[in-house]
Amino acid sequence: MNKKYVYLFKEGNASMRELLGGKGANLAEMTTLGMPIPQGFTITTEACNKYYEDNEQISDIILKQIDSALIFLEEQTGKKLGSIQRPLLVSVRSGARASMPGMMDTILNLGMNDDVVQVFAEKNRRFAYDSYRRFIQMYADVVREVPKDLFEKAIDTKKYQRGLHLDTDMDANDLEDLVKVFKGIYRDYLHEEFPQDTKLQLIEAVKAVFRSWNNPRAITYRKLNDIPSSWGTAVNVQEMVFGNMGDDCGTGVAFSRNPATGKKEIFGEYLMNAQGEDVVAGIRTPQSMDSLKHVNSNVYNQFAKYADKLEKHYKDMQDMEFTIEHGKLYMLQTRNAKRTAVAALKVAVDLVAEGLIDEKEAMLRVDPEQLNQLLHPDFDKKKLKAAKVITKGLPASPGAATGKLVFTAERAQELAEQGEKELILARLETSPEDIEGMVVCNGILTVRGGMTSHAAVVARGMGTCCVAGCGDLTVNSDDKILYTKEGQEFHEGDYISIDGSTGNVYGEKIETVDADVSGDFAKFMGWADKIRTLEVRTNADNPRDAKKAYEFGAQGIGLCRTEHMFFEPDRIAAIREMIVSETPEQRADALNKILPMQRGDFEELFRTMKGYPVTIRLLDPPLHEFLPKKDDEIKELAKDMGITYKKLKEIVSDLHEFNPMMGFRGCRLDVKYPEIAVMQTKAIMEAAINVQNEGIKVIPEIMIPLVGDTKELRFVKNIVEETAEDLLKNSNSKVKYHIGTMIEIPRACLMADEIARDAEFFSFGTNDLTQLTYGFSRDDAGKFLKYYYEEKIFESDPFQKVDQKGVGKLMQMAIKDSKKVRPDIELGICGEHGGNPPTVEFCHNIGLTYVSCSPFRVPIARLAAAQAAVKTETK
Amino acid sequence: MNKKYVYLFKEGNASMRELLGGKGANLAEMTTLGMPIPQGFTITTEACNKYYEDNEQISDIILKQIDSALIFLEEQTGKKLGSIQRPLLVSVRSGARASMPGMMDTILNLGMNDDVVQVFAEKNRRFAYDSYRRFIQMYADVVREVPKDLFEKAIDTKKYQRGLHLDTDMDANDLEDLVKVFKGIYRDYLHEEFPQDTKLQLIEAVKAVFRSWNNPRAITYRKLNDIPSSWGTAVNVQEMVFGNMGDDCGTGVAFSRNPATGKKEIFGEYLMNAQGEDVVAGIRTPQSMDSLKHVNSNVYNQFAKYADKLEKHYKDMQDMEFTIEHGKLYMLQTRNAKRTAVAALKVAVDLVAEGLIDEKEAMLRVDPEQLNQLLHPDFDKKKLKAAKVITKGLPASPGAATGKLVFTAERAQELAEQGEKELILARLETSPEDIEGMVVCNGILTVRGGMTSHAAVVARGMGTCCVAGCGDLTVNSDDKILYTKEGQEFHEGDYISIDGSTGNVYGEKIETVDADVSGDFAKFMGWADKIRTLEVRTNADNPRDAKKAYEFGAQGIGLCRTEHMFFEPDRIAAIREMIVSETPEQRADALNKILPMQRGDFEELFRTMKGYPVTIRLLDPPLHEFLPKKDDEIKELAKDMGITYKKLKEIVSDLHEFNPMMGFRGCRLDVKYPEIAVMQTKAIMEAAINVQNEGIKVIPEIMIPLVGDTKELRFVKNIVEETAEDLLKNSNSKVKYHIGTMIEIPRACLMADEIARDAEFFSFGTNDLTQLTYGFSRDDAGKFLKYYYEEKIFESDPFQKVDQKGVGKLMQMAIKDSKKVRPDIELGICGEHGGNPPTVEFCHNIGLTYVSCSPFRVPIARLAAAQAAVKTETK
Repeated sequence: MNKKYVYLFKEGNASMRELLGGKGANLAEMTTLGMPIPQGFTITTEACNKYYEDNEQISDIILKQIDSALIFLEEQTGKKLGSIQRPLLVSVRSGARASMPGMMDTILNLGMNDDVVQVFAEKNRRFAYDSYRRFIQMYADVVREVPKDLFEKAIDTKKYQRGLHLDTDMDANDLEDLVKVFKGIYRDYLHEEFPQDTKLQLIEAVKAVFRSWNNPRAITYRKLNDIPSSWGTAVNVQEMVFGNMGDDCGTGVAFSRNPATGKKEIFGEYLMNAQGEDVVAGIRTPQSMDSLKHVNSNVYNQFAKYADKLEKHYKDMQDMEFTIEHGKLYMLQTRNAKRTAVAALKVAVDLVAEGLIDEKEAMLRVDPEQLNQLLHPDFDKKKLKAAKVITKGLPASPGAATGKLVFTAERAQELAEQGEKELILARLETSPEDIEGMVVCNGILTVRGGMTSHAAVVARGMGTCCVAGCGDLTVNSDDKILYTKEGQEFHEGDYISIDGSTGNVYGEKIETVDADVSGDFAKFMGWADKIRTLEVRTNADNPRDAKKAYEFGAQGIGLCRTEHMFFEPDRIAAIREMIVSETPEQRADALNKILPMQRGDFEELFRTMKGYPVTIRLLDPPLHEFLPKKDDEIKELAKDMGITYKKLKEIVSDLHEFNPMMGFRGCRLDVKYPEIAVMQTKAIMEAAINVQNEGIKVIPEIMIPLVGDTKELRFVKNIVEETAEDLLKNSNSKVKYHIGTMIEIPRACLMADEIARDAEFFSFGTNDLTQLTYGFSRDDAGKFLKYYYEEKIFESDPFQKVDQKGVGKLMQMAIKDSKKVRPDIELGICGEHGGNPPTVEFCHNIGLTYVSCSPFRVPIARLAAAQAAVKTETK
Repeated sequence: MNKKYVYLFKEGNASMRELLGGKGANLAEMTTLGMPIPQGFTITTEACNKYYEDNEQISDIILKQIDSALIFLEEQTGKKLGSIQRPLLVSVRSGARASMPGMMDTILNLGMNDDVVQVFAEKNRRFAYDSYRRFIQMYADVVREVPKDLFEKAIDTKKYQRGLHLDTDMDANDLEDLVKVFKGIYRDYLHEEFPQDTKLQLIEAVKAVFRSWNNPRAITYRKLNDIPSSWGTAVNVQEMVFGNMGDDCGTGVAFSRNPATGKKEIFGEYLMNAQGEDVVAGIRTPQSMDSLKHVNSNVYNQFAKYADKLEKHYKDMQDMEFTIEHGKLYMLQTRNAKRTAVAALKVAVDLVAEGLIDEKEAMLRVDPEQLNQLLHPDFDKKKLKAAKVITKGLPASPGAATGKLVFTAERAQELAEQGEKELILARLETSPEDIEGMVVCNGILTVRGGMTSHAAVVARGMGTCCVAGCGDLTVNSDDKILYTKEGQEFHEGDYISIDGSTGNVYGEKIETVDADVSGDFAKFMGWADKIRTLEVRTNADNPRDAKKAYEFGAQGIGLCRTEHMFFEPDRIAAIREMIVSETPEQRADALNKILPMQRGDFEELFRTMKGYPVTIRLLDPPLHEFLPKKDDEIKELAKDMGITYKKLKEIVSDLHEFNPMMGFRGCRLDVKYPEIAVMQTKAIMEAAINVQNEGIKVIPEIMIPLVGDTKELRFVKNIVEETAEDLLKNSNSKVKYHIGTMIEIPRACLMADEIARDAEFFSFGTNDLTQLTYGFSRDDAGKFLKYYYEEKIFESDPFQKVDQKGVGKLMQMAIKDSKKVRPDIELGICGEHGGNPPTVEFCHNIGLTYVSCSPFRVPIARLAAAQAAVKTETK
């Protein structure tokens, strides 16, 4: 038997979403529920894939099945496509597995031609020609790519000639004229007549919808929303019903609850005597659903009843389209409604209170990524409306910020010390030495750099709003001027505002409002914590971040990058002294200057984490990162350090690396300079002893980075262990500490059974692991990855979402092998992936102990972990 | 029962080499064979490892077992350690699993003390004190690290006072005096008396031998010879016999065949009235073994009989030590003899002819690395003796070369065109643009750079002799002067000579002799080809290399790096034009200029390979490698190209990469610039068609580099396939070609089951695969890997010998998974590892189809492959 590529609505149901798409599955389900649905059929997503396999042709098998379905529909409706007795008009709409609103194409009123229009004209001339001219325009645009504006201009001309303002002002004669003009446009552009064969119209429309799956905006949308191109779209062919046949007709869109607030009420808009697109177009102002009560209470009550029924059926808030044709209500579509984060939370909590779902199901009703909106300040919506966007960059770190412009990190620190509270730092790009200045700013704006640039990564880590890569701006730091493309100038102290969730930049002050994380948020996250089994820790390099993360529910620090503590002026001087040292003794002396500072930092971290584990990674970056590269800077530093330029220049040259990512860094530093590991271990253990003596529980976890071989780990571990044991013995203290390693080199995954013998914990450093597994450097990959997206070679960014097939396979090998030799090994992830919901789910599934992410992503990870636990249970 | 740590000689045998060490196992075996062996016992390698585990102490268990063995030895010999009736003297010698000549310590005459010496003095006073003073010196040096030269000076003083020249001129009184002086030195240096307790002497000596396993020269030797430190050394305690008790005594070392030529004859040296060390010391000139026939024909015949018996027993040429004590012959040691490459070949071939071994066993009698000596020219040995070494560098590419000094590649080309045949190019370091000049030189000398520098890699590839990293030399290319550290000057045209096998540089002309690869070599390699199942191909980027490799038995080209063809002046201009192109059309135009040149190269390769497969890799390096980096060079090039400096500078900046190894290269280039793949495919297929039309069979294999995902491969494959098919169709030709990929990214190994669907062959690019799996860049790793060797974290260079546990695991996964979807997939290796014998064996074992290596390593790989096949069979 042939594969079934076409399903009547009554043959499907909601569980067939993969095959029928979301819309098709819902139409089928609603049919089964006995809703008043205009009937029709769905051509499956498999048909779409076959269409592409067959070189963009619809095969005979599918054509035949469409034929049969059409015949059935004609019998069911008593109408017939192209008939001049009882003509059938249909809509042809896309419908993918996941909702992709507005991304693909739709054609309405299909079945119209010069004869059919007459049949309708007999009843309602204006409606008939209006429908026909709309159909011609849509078909020409979608199926044949005739430019839309040719038709728009013709409408404008017509209205101008007739002295009319609105499309609706045109009468039947105008519209009949327009049909002629439109057919002329079609003919002139394509050198052929507008097709009168209604069957051909149908097939061409179906193909066009299939094609629209791969239009550029659909591809972009899929990339952003992580939808594989292999899913394809289904096509729904459905009898048309008309909201524009007269004043007893209408059409609308309404929600079963308020999508902005989550309040339980019928919320939406409708227009009488209109088609769906009129509601969206905004020419006529739609009415609120409340008014429908008075206009047609019967229809309103019926709708409210259906809404309630659908909500109970789907156990979620619904977004429904309906049409009233001559007083009869038709439901056209229902789907789980998109909603704001606030609404999502309230709906989830309310549905639990109403007994429709339980706490576990509630977890799945909020998109973890949405929580982001709740954790950051936002602009006052009213004030925002009046503000003018001066440029747009990448939404690199969410939130809204307003403040006085400042051009260097040092100046920001100065102004902050003078009490300035609202500052926006504008830089060509930021560098590690800017961190102290970035901390005191509300927002960061950069001209260069992408979503993973230094500014973006650091800002996300700090929860500071950031707009990166504003290529249209010019920053002149010397003269302290910011120029827009149009030549507008902003000087130091001028107010600007940036929106890190949209990338918008405004040239003025806009009031912001703080996030509200009480009430529903607290209750909901409480459920999440009860349900999830995966721990959530944070990546925090300083007490400020640690404090924020603790407030957000972090259960420890999964990664403290000690080198981030080294860039303050007094520290970097000591580090540089260490680098230019010629003997281990000199090196130890220099390190001893840093020791009390590091110890102080660690004490603060232990205090903040109140008994949760604190994982501290030993020094990781190559040493040249602490030295200047430019000759004049080297000269200056040499003078400061009291050594010759020649000597310092030689040291800088010696440290130069061709591929620093794969260079002399991580534990490799400790093999050559054991003094570094000694100093850092002392700082950690002394801090732990001190804080424990304050009566606070401490769990130090010392993490040795960049291990690829067990002997390498053992070498550094021995240094750490000896230092720690000596210290504990000499201070007569007992502190339980753990030594483990970061798994970030492919070989470490391959050698996990050996390495686990010497490591109490593994923390997957998926940033480097991804770089090495793919063989591309994150700093350089931008140059070619855009072509990979364009050519659909890659569908998601492996630095955002862990590559489960490749990198994930290595992780799974490492987990399996490590557990063989150490069943109780603690397993975590501390790459930036740790806050990415699909990755959190993957981490749950492969058996990690915890994920660690930047502070502002902690709640997101908590929810994602709860969702993963729920999904596991229901598998 | 306790583990057995001590074996009497009669308890062991030759198969116990791992436990007893080579020497111990042989002594045991010889004992069993009924040879006249001074008896003794062996303390096992496990005891050595336990000694280290127990923090350099010998445990009680082992002490007890030594005691028992000693008692047995005393009963057997009727002598007793420390006895003043019949005192036993013993030697204490190291003996590891593999021979490590001279690397570890030995103590002779142990058991001497002030009382024992009297017993011996009664019989032979001179002998007694001579033995005692030797023992004191050895013990003091080896066990207590008293500086040797303190003793040497005392001897010199004594001889000076007495007006004597040679040690042997000293009489009994002198030696008795010396014993006193020596004991004084010992006392003064260590503040204690020389130990009189002979048992303590023994135990301390054993410990000292264990310790010598980890002396620096032993560690270095192990690293060079790839011997794991975990093996440990055994210690042999053996009754002393004396060749220095009078004129009817003697000692010698002899081979069962000539170790230089392989000729079957007793070959060696001996000295009458001497101890073993005297033979080596070179103070007295030893006699040739021939003369022993006349001195003591009885002993000579006995020795010849034993030599023959041992050779037949071990089925290999033996290296034996013997001592004659009062006319009685003692065999002290036998082992398979070290021999030159020439001798190794002759002995292997002769042993087959003599019926002692078969062809397969013969394979194992030649070290593949040794063949290197046979493939390159060498200095005339006689001439070499008189030559003076002016400096020493790294032996980067083997062979010997003599020629006139030249300082730039251009000048070398000029002189070569003028007919100059003997040229040595001296550079600070070489770069890709020097290649044409390097080709015309006999030898390359560089000041900077290591074994894997550009000069070294290219020279090895070309089989040209190279000495790299001569840090003591200064090269002034502008003035064309080479300075030695001592200030000696060499100018252009001055003769120098370099030895790429030793690293020696000579400041004069030295005649060279060509390699002789006829006779035994040809016969032996013929056997190897019959036995091996692994194919051997070559890495060759030009017809010259391909020709050489074909002569050396290569069965095809496994890797042709097309970019190496791009550096000639006319080609690089076109490449640069391509890089600065702004449209695909401009780019295609520039590429079209290169096409005929590439096609010509490929034609030559196909012709040279006479029907063997030729694997051509598409362009691999990042484009910035083809552009200058320095401002003045950019300015010049911009002028040449007729574009502005600013524009070219911008292009250079845009192409800059932080980690070029992980950058925009390999197939990533083809994704952005499909024109490159199109041009290269055309060049390959047009060449294939042309050569096939000449009646020569062609097998083009097009290799797509740096693939990490199957979609990426498929994208480029489609371009290649379309281009090839179009071309074949248009030219009405039929050529069977293959498309495959280089597996050099860890992810490619993990995705092998998917990638193999689109690849007819995999070629493991183990250079990059090693870099990425370990996460270190070959160009940078030198900075820290030396510490890894020092700390014994790494024991061999993963860029020389494939890391079987890590990289090898990935390879094995890839092989297994790829065969699942494509059982007949062709699998090769084309990293530099392909010519490394242990790697060749590994490749054989994991089921590769072929290895590919540089031309001069082809015979080495052929033999290594044969050895692997033999080992598999006998497993």
